[in-house]
Amino acid sequence: MTLPTPGFSFRVETLDGSARCGVFTTPRAVIETPAFMPVGTQAAVKALSPEEVAATGARIILANTYHLWLRPGAELVARHGGVVGFMKWPHALLTDSGGYQVFSLAKHRTIDDDGITFRSHLDGDEYRLTPEEAMRVQALLGSDVAMVLDECPPGGAPRADVERAIKRTTVWTTRSLAAPSAEGQGRFGIVQGGTHLDLRLSHLQTVGALDVDGVALGGFSVGEPIEQMYELLAAIGPRMPADKPRYLMGVGTPTDLLRAVGNGIDLFDCVLPTRNARNGQALTWSGRANLRQARHSDDHSPVDPMCECPTCAAFSRAYVRHLFKSDEMLGPRLLTLHNLHFYGALMRKAREMIRTQAFASWAESTIQRMRELDEVTAAEG
Amino acid sequence: MTLPTPGFSFRVETLDGSARCGVFTTPRAVIETPAFMPVGTQAAVKALSPEEVAATGARIILANTYHLWLRPGAELVARHGGVVGFMKWPHALLTDSGGYQVFSLAKHRTIDDDGITFRSHLDGDEYRLTPEEAMRVQALLGSDVAMVLDECPPGGAPRADVERAIKRTTVWTTRSLAAPSAEGQGRFGIVQGGTHLDLRLSHLQTVGALDVDGVALGGFSVGEPIEQMYELLAAIGPRMPADKPRYLMGVGTPTDLLRAVGNGIDLFDCVLPTRNARNGQALTWSGRANLRQARHSDDHSPVDPMCECPTCAAFSRAYVRHLFKSDEMLGPRLLTLHNLHFYGALMRKAREMIRTQAFASWAESTIQRMRELDEVTAAEG
Repeated sequence: MTLPTPGFSFRVETLDGSARCGVFTTPRAVIETPAFMPVGTQAAVKALSPEEVAATGARIILANTYHLWLRPGAELVARHGGVVGFMKWPHALLTDSGGYQVFSLAKHRTIDDDGITFRSHLDGDEYRLTPEEAMRVQALLGSDVAMVLDECPPGGAPRADVERAIKRTTVWTTRSLAAPSAEGQGRFGIVQGGTHLDLRLSHLQTVGALDVDGVALGGFSVGEPIEQMYELLAAIGPRMPADKPRYLMGVGTPTDLLRAVGNGIDLFDCVLPTRNARNGQALTWSGRANLRQARHSDDHSPVDPMCECPTCAAFSRAYVRHLFKSDEMLGPRLLTLHNLHFYGALMRKAREMIRTQAFASWAESTIQRMRELDEVTAAEG
Repeated sequence: MTLPTPGFSFRVETLDGSARCGVFTTPRAVIETPAFMPVGTQAAVKALSPEEVAATGARIILANTYHLWLRPGAELVARHGGVVGFMKWPHALLTDSGGYQVFSLAKHRTIDDDGITFRSHLDGDEYRLTPEEAMRVQALLGSDVAMVLDECPPGGAPRADVERAIKRTTVWTTRSLAAPSAEGQGRFGIVQGGTHLDLRLSHLQTVGALDVDGVALGGFSVGEPIEQMYELLAAIGPRMPADKPRYLMGVGTPTDLLRAVGNGIDLFDCVLPTRNARNGQALTWSGRANLRQARHSDDHSPVDPMCECPTCAAFSRAYVRHLFKSDEMLGPRLLTLHNLHFYGALMRKAREMIRTQAFASWAESTIQRMRELDEVTAAEG
């Protein structure tokens, strides 16, 4: 069915319990869901070319408004065709609002009901982020999907703080949606509420009723016990709007993704596969492996024998380990390529299992296999 | 014509003055000369995949014996199919003897007539490099071409030191050639002599008379004025054996390569295109450009409008600059790709010009163009 913004549509093709297989269409891409969005913070998925990212199956990536606003500047990016033109990404793009990174990276932040004043972590220049400014900057960045400005309270914040953040987020969402919209740019609303189920559900009702092209869950995976996130997702996911894409922001591990897909989530983004790759950690069908460990020094086998990515097709664990031990940037590059291929394959397989009504048991056995064969846990245990 | 080692041959196809176009065949590759060998020090051309290196036109690369001997170890590399099997390089490989880097990197070096004792710069372990050991290690590394162990005196060394180094190099060359040879591995001798033309010519006679598959010039570009190197090359190059590949070690800039080709050199290696790329310097048909400079911040044009590499085909200078300013490793990767493509194209064009008897004037105008349009000189001037 069509979404509020012209050129956007979302269609659920198969339901398997709460899990769903769908097609999210933007002006630039047809995205099969569930889908993982690789993170290209500064208009680059670290170490990879756009072709390599696309070859993992990704049809939408995320870029960070805060970073690009500060450097090289949103106006400059706009002159170069927006983020997709600047970085030559041939598919769809989602940008965050910038709010989350103002809180995690910027200096001297002061927040009021109208917006946030902060200083750049790069040069100390003062900036002012309001709901309207977040939309203006994202319009310049030219993403397919812009996120409304929200306030994400820190993990473990008192209930009163969460309630205040929800109120502010609601006002900011309305203001964001009232701001002039860029041609061909859809907008997702964000549900907050921390670990309080009642607050989450009531905010979901508020946001779900607005004229948004998709609904996101913010403020998860910010320090709460993972089982608590799973419980909340089980209660919230199935109650999110059925006819719009559902996006769990900043999550997560392969297990997190499968749990969330089981509860009806469609879209994910996370730095985990790319960041961990740069630290030598491979994510595989058999859990995690740290390629820096000596156990791999003479290992002829690929990073993941069950993987068909270019890294696993060609190179041995011994070679990848050598690259990491020798500080060769080909090491992070090859593991990033593998990890994103694995995430792409995981989502592809999840869609296939949903289509054949076999998702739940496949997900359980996949999660169990990854837990049992996890080399990082084994090395620590 | 065939060379001493079975499976090796070299054929000069065209002469244009002293410049020559030829075909050097090893068991793993057919190499059109003049050719540039990208440097893959630690069994990886920094930032690039083997396919990308091959796509620059390279059919032979260089790996450094010293580095691989110390880490991950020559025996380990041998168990993984040698360097080419370990790194999945699909063409030919040349290894140096290790001697040069023992002198530039290792600790507590002591040299005697039999060899060199040193400690690893990585862990302080003691090693002993002799002519026989250099051949044993290179046999394990499995290169197509092994270099004999030589002594390269420092730039500006007194004549007596150069004479002693030549004597030692001659003895070590004979010992290297007498050491058991690996199947399918050819051997190049090395001519020393610093900036002393008479010493160079007499050592060339000595080395050229030995049973080597190629003759290399060592000890150039070690601090002597560049015009002095050109003068020496003009006197030495044409007198090198006509029927064997001639290799100028560790050289150089695009201009250096064209000057040397004009004097009959066939093979080159140098870290310049790869190392300078990582510092943001592009080498182009219009000289050098520093992509970190602010002048490129809003520049829509490619790194080199005359280049057809994947970097220049897709990306703007503004984007490449953004990657460098943002410490994205895609920046070094894209510039390394460009620089090696440029070196490949330069050698391809040189061969074409030799074939049409137009090398000298083309080389002069190319050198002049690169000098006149050089942005780095312009920025400094």
